[in-house]
Amino acid sequence: MSQAQYNLYGQFMDQDRLERQIRFILEIDKLKRIVRRSYLLDQERRENAAEHSWHLAVIAMLLGEHAEEPVTVSRVVEMLLVHDLVEIEAGDAYIYDAEATRDQAEWEAEAARRIFGLLPADQAGMMWALWAEFEAGVTPEARFAKALDRLMPLLHNYYTEGKSWREHGITSAQVLARNASASAVSEPLWRLIHRLVEEAVANGYLAG
Amino acid sequence: MSQAQYNLYGQFMDQDRLERQIRFILEIDKLKRIVRRSYLLDQERRENAAEHSWHLAVIAMLLGEHAEEPVTVSRVVEMLLVHDLVEIEAGDAYIYDAEATRDQAEWEAEAARRIFGLLPADQAGMMWALWAEFEAGVTPEARFAKALDRLMPLLHNYYTEGKSWREHGITSAQVLARNASASAVSEPLWRLIHRLVEEAVANGYLAG
Repeated sequence: MSQAQYNLYGQFMDQDRLERQIRFILEIDKLKRIVRRSYLLDQERRENAAEHSWHLAVIAMLLGEHAEEPVTVSRVVEMLLVHDLVEIEAGDAYIYDAEATRDQAEWEAEAARRIFGLLPADQAGMMWALWAEFEAGVTPEARFAKALDRLMPLLHNYYTEGKSWREHGITSAQVLARNASASAVSEPLWRLIHRLVEEAVANGYLAG
Repeated sequence: MSQAQYNLYGQFMDQDRLERQIRFILEIDKLKRIVRRSYLLDQERRENAAEHSWHLAVIAMLLGEHAEEPVTVSRVVEMLLVHDLVEIEAGDAYIYDAEATRDQAEWEAEAARRIFGLLPADQAGMMWALWAEFEAGVTPEARFAKALDRLMPLLHNYYTEGKSWREHGITSAQVLARNASASAVSEPLWRLIHRLVEEAVANGYLAG
């Protein structure tokens, strides 16, 4: 027996749910086309939002132990898997570009409604809840997920000798401000961030 | 307090664990360079193994309800996130190329040992266990994960009018054989597979 919820029409609803799910699955293929600012470590190209989401989900499986407050790792993983889906429509406003981020919240909520709305209502609600929890950044899981989302571009930049930082004239103050929330989320991660920023400035990857 | 396990040296071990974890995180960036045979739905380029893993993990969050045997979705998600990591070294042997797959198991086990071995021993073991469970395909979670891993190229092919199937002269018998295990894993998915293969042949996307 499938575990789908059946209505009066039995099998029919099951197929209808599956068809909606497949429509969503096809739609989110577009996340693979959303290019971010960070370069792959081999510097060959910029990374896209789908592979970035994969990387973060794996990282969450490993670094959860460094969170100050206990986190349910599977929740962090699920949040990170879906946190960028709205980029399909909203585009990836560069995090240091205040102008572009001004109306982003509004665009993103609209994008979330449309994209998640492809799913059966209960699953649309589940996706919305994950995305909204991440955006609000209040629960330990969301705060930790956000800290990882901000740590990763720092790692990519540091290990590509500041390629994207230098292209955009980013300063150490901006990177530290961007990652400031990590100080309350994880002491070991915060120490790592500080050390990398200091070394990046010393090595000329990042403006002091 | 961080939840890392401390040894006699306290903080020190925590930092050492984090450094090993970061080395692994940097290493697996390479999965973004492993190109698969399937094309993105926009047909602009082939997909890579990292974005494929992301797609599958999201799909597992949604389609778990169609599994005949109850599955722990978070376990399926974790398996799918790491199932392709060995491709970093072993390469992605095309699933219909029997010649190439002959020695693949051996290469992959070696790759798994090296890549997972970058991590602290307990996490290397966790990763190995996830990967080995997927490969063995015995637990309900692994069987379901494998069914999704085989379904996805079918969806990509069907919705790109058989682009990769036609390039490689694949037949409907091969696709059905490749997906045969789905019949025991999920009745709704098996019906979907059958319908798509029939329509693909009727539309000339796939050799009959």
